[in-house]
Amino acid sequence: MADAGRAVGHLMRVVMATRNEHKLREVREIVPGIEIVALDEALGEPPETGDSFEANALEKARYVFARTGLPTIADDSGLEVSALGWAPGVRSKRWTPEATDRANNERLVASLRGIENRRARYRCAMALVTSRGERTAEGTCWGTIALAPRGAGGFGYDPYFLPDAYPGRTMAEVTAEEKHRVSHRGQAFRALPELLDELG
Amino acid sequence: MADAGRAVGHLMRVVMATRNEHKLREVREIVPGIEIVALDEALGEPPETGDSFEANALEKARYVFARTGLPTIADDSGLEVSALGWAPGVRSKRWTPEATDRANNERLVASLRGIENRRARYRCAMALVTSRGERTAEGTCWGTIALAPRGAGGFGYDPYFLPDAYPGRTMAEVTAEEKHRVSHRGQAFRALPELLDELG
Repeated sequence: MADAGRAVGHLMRVVMATRNEHKLREVREIVPGIEIVALDEALGEPPETGDSFEANALEKARYVFARTGLPTIADDSGLEVSALGWAPGVRSKRWTPEATDRANNERLVASLRGIENRRARYRCAMALVTSRGERTAEGTCWGTIALAPRGAGGFGYDPYFLPDAYPGRTMAEVTAEEKHRVSHRGQAFRALPELLDELG
Repeated sequence: MADAGRAVGHLMRVVMATRNEHKLREVREIVPGIEIVALDEALGEPPETGDSFEANALEKARYVFARTGLPTIADDSGLEVSALGWAPGVRSKRWTPEATDRANNERLVASLRGIENRRARYRCAMALVTSRGERTAEGTCWGTIALAPRGAGGFGYDPYFLPDAYPGRTMAEVTAEEKHRVSHRGQAFRALPELLDELG
């Protein structure tokens, strides 16, 4: 293993071109000094360094298109709260160190304690990147932040988001079909067929 | 959805640059007329069209390296049986339409019914492809095909493969450590640290 140690100094990780879990496990056992990355992990996490939903969506779609050559879509989306200067915005997913829905929602509740203006909007940018060009589309969904969570549907801030379209119900209390009809993501992605046609 | 239908005529599938299962599900619900492929599926199945283990291993490693730019290893391996003209060889995994261990082993048993010469060998080629070049290594493990399966370890033809190194035990009856010490894959992949060093 001394040699493996030296090799690792130059080149820490290799991708193994297989979907066979048995082979992956055996090779990891045979050369434990080298980090073997599964094929599915090889693409890595697309970057997301922009300061707008649109920039981030484009960045993610370009990253994957460059590596696969396949028509790629990406979504960047988040919650903007008026009283918080439209935070958390593009940082909605990583607003807390834990980056979990639970921790993020706890921060949202704490940030709005005693604040009367609870207006907010969900925003979504979608990007499409193909060999024939790039397109983006956006969607916005207005609502109010609830005082307490309700509902088990959706994800993210949905249990606290009361969309204007469904008075008295949070986004986690409406059906998926109802959500998509009015949601930021529904609006943005319903443009996809036309955008594909344009680039066809 | 008429528009989606038309778009699909040109461009059936798009990759979605996300690992967020919620977003993936929602977008599939929002635009059901378009096939949304998860990021993890985007690399596709590497080709395997060669007639030698080495050619196939190189082909697979090159495919993934070209798409990820990351140092990539691949394994191509199989069972060669003397009395069968060294079949199934590179077709070991897809020797039957089912391409399952069970169906393949049934075919092996049937093919050797009444045949006295049950000598066989496992072979493995590994390929390493990086921006600095390509390397391959091979390993062979000799043995005999058992009349009945034994053991729950390993995979593939292991319950029927009696390696010369462990008289009386099948490759599925030895420990993983014992298997790797003598196996085709163990021999091939123990070259990896040195090959990484050479390309370092």
